[in-house]
Amino acid sequence: MSTFIRNAWYVAASSDEIGSEKPLGRTICNIQIAFFRDSKDQVQAVEDFCPHRGAPLSLGYVEGDNLVCGYHGLQMGADGSTQSMPSQRVEKFPCIKQIPVVERYGFIWIWPGDKQAADDSLIPVLEWALDPKWAYGGGLYHIKCDYRLMIDNLMDLTHETYVHASSIGQKEIDETPVKTTMEGTQVVTSRYMEGILPPPFWQNALQANGLPTDQPVDRWQICRFDAPSHVMIEVGVAMAGKGGYEAPAEQKANSTVVDFITPETDGSIWYFWGMARNFKADDEALTASIREGQGQIFSEDLEILERQQQNLDRFPDRHLLKLDIDAGGVQARRIIERTIKREQPSATSGAA
Amino acid sequence: MSTFIRNAWYVAASSDEIGSEKPLGRTICNIQIAFFRDSKDQVQAVEDFCPHRGAPLSLGYVEGDNLVCGYHGLQMGADGSTQSMPSQRVEKFPCIKQIPVVERYGFIWIWPGDKQAADDSLIPVLEWALDPKWAYGGGLYHIKCDYRLMIDNLMDLTHETYVHASSIGQKEIDETPVKTTMEGTQVVTSRYMEGILPPPFWQNALQANGLPTDQPVDRWQICRFDAPSHVMIEVGVAMAGKGGYEAPAEQKANSTVVDFITPETDGSIWYFWGMARNFKADDEALTASIREGQGQIFSEDLEILERQQQNLDRFPDRHLLKLDIDAGGVQARRIIERTIKREQPSATSGAA
Amino acid sequence: MSTFIRNAWYVAASSDEIGSEKPLGRTICNIQIAFFRDSKDQVQAVEDFCPHRGAPLSLGYVEGDNLVCGYHGLQMGADGSTQSMPSQRVEKFPCIKQIPVVERYGFIWIWPGDKQAADDSLIPVLEWALDPKWAYGGGLYHIKCDYRLMIDNLMDLTHETYVHASSIGQKEIDETPVKTTMEGTQVVTSRYMEGILPPPFWQNALQANGLPTDQPVDRWQICRFDAPSHVMIEVGVAMAGKGGYEAPAEQKANSTVVDFITPETDGSIWYFWGMARNFKADDEALTASIREGQGQIFSEDLEILERQQQNLDRFPDRHLLKLDIDAGGVQARRIIERTIKREQPSATSGAA
Repeated sequence: MSTFIRNAWYVAASSDEIGSEKPLGRTICNIQIAFFRDSKDQVQAVEDFCPHRGAPLSLGYVEGDNLVCGYHGLQMGADGSTQSMPSQRVEKFPCIKQIPVVERYGFIWIWPGDKQAADDSLIPVLEWALDPKWAYGGGLYHIKCDYRLMIDNLMDLTHETYVHASSIGQKEIDETPVKTTMEGTQVVTSRYMEGILPPPFWQNALQANGLPTDQPVDRWQICRFDAPSHVMIEVGVAMAGKGGYEAPAEQKANSTVVDFITPETDGSIWYFWGMARNFKADDEALTASIREGQGQIFSEDLEILERQQQNLDRFPDRHLLKLDIDAGGVQARRIIERTIKREQPSATSGAA
Repeated sequence: MSTFIRNAWYVAASSDEIGSEKPLGRTICNIQIAFFRDSKDQVQAVEDFCPHRGAPLSLGYVEGDNLVCGYHGLQMGADGSTQSMPSQRVEKFPCIKQIPVVERYGFIWIWPGDKQAADDSLIPVLEWALDPKWAYGGGLYHIKCDYRLMIDNLMDLTHETYVHASSIGQKEIDETPVKTTMEGTQVVTSRYMEGILPPPFWQNALQANGLPTDQPVDRWQICRFDAPSHVMIEVGVAMAGKGGYEAPAEQKANSTVVDFITPETDGSIWYFWGMARNFKADDEALTASIREGQGQIFSEDLEILERQQQNLDRFPDRHLLKLDIDAGGVQARRIIERTIKREQPSATSGAA
Repeated sequence: MSTFIRNAWYVAASSDEIGSEKPLGRTICNIQIAFFRDSKDQVQAVEDFCPHRGAPLSLGYVEGDNLVCGYHGLQMGADGSTQSMPSQRVEKFPCIKQIPVVERYGFIWIWPGDKQAADDSLIPVLEWALDPKWAYGGGLYHIKCDYRLMIDNLMDLTHETYVHASSIGQKEIDETPVKTTMEGTQVVTSRYMEGILPPPFWQNALQANGLPTDQPVDRWQICRFDAPSHVMIEVGVAMAGKGGYEAPAEQKANSTVVDFITPETDGSIWYFWGMARNFKADDEALTASIREGQGQIFSEDLEILERQQQNLDRFPDRHLLKLDIDAGGVQARRIIERTIKREQPSATSGAA
């Protein structure tokens, strides 16, 4: 049984990872994939396996609309069928899998499941990515853990107090209760803190917004999980008593933490992290500095996640606790489990 | 069946490896352990597994008498029961294993077996560690081999002629017969060489003692194995004809090679090596220089032990020879085997 | 069932890899072997396993005609029987395997199969190695792939167009059909190209021969596979219309690419590559520069072969295509398979 949902859109890469000449080889959801741009600059994705002798196509190069195998020159089309090969008739060559792929919002999205079901209207709508009033900066980490450990991590920000003590963590986070609810198919875990002092990261953001940094603020964290494994977190601070989350723009600093968690294999992930903000959107230096700071903060989770995974592998039978702070992750896992179960019959018939 | 004795004291660390803030994570006898000092500076040891989400507790920090998990702030007590967690009732949290631990002689000793049997009067008495006329210097190596290969190595010093040819080895060692006897539960392998020239290491020691380095000496090596895996070796040289091992202090240079061999896993060890000497005990520069020299010499065994282990893994069915020079290791293995067998019933009932 | 022929001569090392003091430890065809030179400078080969305690003999040193174990001084004879050990009677020590070994043509050849069948007249005759009009330069690569992938690679030079585009590759190679035939037990794949421009590597060779580099040439590639896994390739260019392969020496530049592909394990190889040439044989600087160029070119195959192997391991059931360009490799594999099958009964009786 798969450990992840197959019929869903996952982020496989950011747009700038795929140039016009060199393909990108990357494993997503246990599928080795060669990504490349065709002559119209459209991203294409096929299995990374040349039907001639099994060489990885991603070691080759792009020519027109085809991916040329770097070993013996077989030309693979974007549909997974061989287009040509020097001095050969290729009609009967076996096909390889074409992977549904869409480029949108600066990301490459793939659908590892049944091809017919790959409806691109199911790609989540990222309003901030279309709105010029917002800016985005982000990065990519490779982590050796089950993707669900990363979901747990993001749906319970209590850990900020401990893992990120010097930047976004503060004692009030784990002293404030959280509330987990369902909004449609979305799991929402929220926490509101009132009249607290802003931690270093938010002091910087307030300063960037021309607000004082030594005054009490109201702070919020609203984590939203959507299947298969995306977590968007609305975070912010407003000058205390000005309406909190609802305060007018000039009284607050806020942003959206963007997390696309994509299984590489059953035991490793591609973690696309970033931050979208709606203040000083044109300030590229600020974007770069926030990106660097966030990259630093998020790297603090890496060791704990990998070591947690090793511990769980060692003791597969120990039951973990499911506390109120864990409710977001627990709910998310339930949705994932139910969806995987529903997929079983079609998953079986469509298995590679 | 365990490959090592469970109900026994093993050296897990030297005292200075465990500071007052940072815990130490280390696997001993296949148990992942977090070591820390409580508010009274007492060393505590618990399983390195947070009952909340399985993170390693050794990534956290010490607060008062508890170990705080670095992920979500659970406070683990030294008895393996959760003391508190922000905004949680912890009474029903599952316990983790507390590991009997004692700090003595500058070392941290643990008892991986049945807790009730952990009697600290069973810790070997190290007289040199209590006597101000003696000085000690040592170090730690991690080696990928079965701990019994290291016992074999130390109970048969013939190998010095070959492995340590440039320091303590000399041809006379492997030309002189050894005698292996039992003294109570202790295996003793001894070798006495008379009227030989001292090798470089002993020339230095004689010089440090104000004795000539170019005169014949009598040399001895008395290796003592005690279960579960400790080897103490009395070594020394005396000016020839002055009584050898029994010669008066001003006619000899002698010391005790200290070896605590602690299984990490079935295929790897923590090897605590050192030397205790009863001359110039206050000379710290001498302690440092002996320590450096010994570290260099003992590192010469690492490759041969790891490669020997690989060879044995490749040919598990080949019988090794048991020569007279191997008798010390053979006897030690017999004691270990008998003790493991005796432990079986209680081992089964107390298995993790 | 073995994946390679056992009763055959394989190249295990080049002569200069085995000095007079230090043995060489190397695994060939799944056998760990210690190679050393005896007092008559003859190369000897025994299993790399000391019968005393299993230490690798290759960590020791040579004394007279014996290999001395670096652990306890056992003296191993070239016939696999212990010659002596300090203070021990060694008559009943178990023997280790002696591996038939011959030094010839600057290489060390071993026979991993039945000792009685090891007839050194079966070593291939390398005429260029005996003829002073020829010069040779070569090197060694370790590659993690099945040895047959390397045979495929060399018996189908179409890949030069893609893998070696900047040196020996040219479009005309994969536009020209190949012919695969059997000459006795030898598989021969040949390709003749007429009236083409020489690629960079051959421009250099023509220049070294005092021939113009901008004129059309006839080019040939004749790949010869001999069991168990040797591939010799006659390559060259002649000024167009002067007789091609048969052209007189002053109208051409030609050489023999030498490839000994020796299995280390079932999934890794020692790849001895080199080039023998019959022009400017005394020019050592030229030998060095060709060697460097060839080493560079052949290193381009490493990544593709290792990644191809990983792909095949992932999809063991996919059938690879067998095109005309693959016929050389396919024929070679058939010969190998038939020979392995024939070896089965004796392989069983002689198994280690």
